[in-house]
Amino acid sequence: MVTVLPLDAPRRAAELQGAAFVERAPFDAEIGMAVAASDQELRAAFASLVRRAQAEAEVPASIDPDATAWAVLAFMQGMASQLTYDPVAEEAVRDQCRLIVDALLHGSQAGEHDEPASP
Amino acid sequence: MVTVLPLDAPRRAAELQGAAFVERAPFDAEIGMAVAASDQELRAAFASLVRRAQAEAEVPASIDPDATAWAVLAFMQGMASQLTYDPVAEEAVRDQCRLIVDALLHGSQAGEHDEPASP
Repeated sequence: MVTVLPLDAPRRAAELQGAAFVERAPFDAEIGMAVAASDQELRAAFASLVRRAQAEAEVPASIDPDATAWAVLAFMQGMASQLTYDPVAEEAVRDQCRLIVDALLHGSQAGEHDEPASP
Repeated sequence: MVTVLPLDAPRRAAELQGAAFVERAPFDAEIGMAVAASDQELRAAFASLVRRAQAEAEVPASIDPDATAWAVLAFMQGMASQLTYDPVAEEAVRDQCRLIVDALLHGSQAGEHDEPASP
């Protein structure tokens, strides 16, 4: 997740290139459909990771894979955009991504629900 | 949260206007600083809502207000951007926002941790 965020020059260039398409997307139906299809591919990939983790009992069955994938993609897109004009140290970004993923997948910001509440 | 998302024509126009500044932000230091300052104001406002909810014992003290505010803003920015080229029914957006806020504030996607696990 962190590895694709614009935290150095090459990834910043890639993010700005992608953002140029997103900027046109609301005004050009073909670009809009292409970007929406790319989003959908990413959401499907994330959702399939969630389903695999559920099959392996790493993630509770109560988690909604599609809603989680949507949340992760929206969060990453917002974070990537912010980082292009408001840089943040990689470690802080990493902590922030961990917090989001923990909250979404394990129902906890700090992992406090990872272990059963009553042994 | 849902009320500011681009779910109709006036809010779409407002979002596209804001997006035009964000598009320039990586390339223009003054615009970048202005957008970053506006983000920071929003994060501070969200964090203060979290702190108030913690003071009123509506939200666990273990939640990090600043990290939660950052997560909410990034999520909303990504969601707002997606909605400009990939519209989604308001009810689905509302459910999705509820899921994110529940996961971040209560450590649960479906509210299953709202009540103590062992009475």
